[in-house]
Parts: sequence; structure tokens; C-alpha cells
Amino acid sequence: MPEFMDVHTGMNGVTAEGLKQAHDADLAIQDTENVNFKHAWADPETGTVFCLSEAPDAEAVQRVHAAAGHPADTVYEVGIQA
Amino acid sequence: MPEFMDVHTGMNGVTAEGLKQAHDADLAIQDTENVNFKHAWADPETGTVFCLSEAPDAEAVQRVHAAAGHPADTVYEVGIQA
Repeated sequence: MPEFMDVHTGMNGVTAEGLKQAHDADLAIQDTENVNFKHAWADPETGTVFCLSEAPDAEAVQRVHAAAGHPADTVYEVGIQA
Repeated sequence: MPEFMDVHTGMNGVTAEGLKQAHDADLAIQDTENVNFKHAWADPETGTVFCLSEAPDAEAVQRVHAAAGHPADTVYEVGIQA
């Protein structure tokens, strides 16, 4: 399954609880799109959030995020890793 | 130790071997700055690379990347995770 890193901006001041709630909202519905959100990292200072997932394609990742109320700015297919 | 996600752009067409060489160049010198690069993800299509690390601060991450010949566009401190 392809892997994706997506980026959200404008989440300045996000808290650990806020990130967990957003991530849990993704997890609750991800099966509908066959997406597996693996991890999320947030920088509250700049309001930037990175989410790593496995999914059929980038559009499926975005549909889950949008349905959960927090569409990503950009979804990158990260086909190469080291 | 704080964790960081840094982003590189302009690496369009990066190959698995190219990413490995760049990552290995970081690993070879990271001890000088007490940095631990944990993983790198690349999207050859958009030329975007994400690197996850543990480090004393963002400047140490950037010094390693710069010394290895590939400074990051931005280094984010990702103090919150889910």
C-alpha cells in the first residue's frame, strides 16, 4: 500500500489533547476509505501538522481528513524512504 | 530529546539511491551535533523530502544537513504527537 505524508497549516497553539482528538476522528472513519493513519506530529509554534498514512491514493487520505473536519493543505505520496 | 521534522524542496526526481546517499551523509556526521536522524520520506514527483530527527535544537539539525550539502527549507519542532 502506498504511503503518504500530509501537511496541515494554521493549527497554531494545537495541544496534545487537540491533536489526539483530531487524530482519533480520522481513525474513527478511516476504514471507509481503506486508509491507515500511522502517526501525527505537530509544531504548535508554527501551526504545522504532519500525518503519515498508508492509503490507496492521496484522494482517499484527503477524503478522510475532510470528513473529519480538517482537510490537509497538501498530501504527498512518499514512495521513497530511508 | 526534542524531535524535529524538517522539509526539503526542489528534490524532484530523487531516487531511492539518491535519498539513501543523502541520508547516509547525515548519519555519518550527525554525532558531531548530537543529532539522531530517524527516518526520511521522499516524494519524487513534487521534490519534497521530510526528515524526522531527535536533536538538542533545530539549529543542530540544520547544521548537520548544511554540512552534508543539503540544507533544509524549514525545521519544525514537533513537540506534540499522536
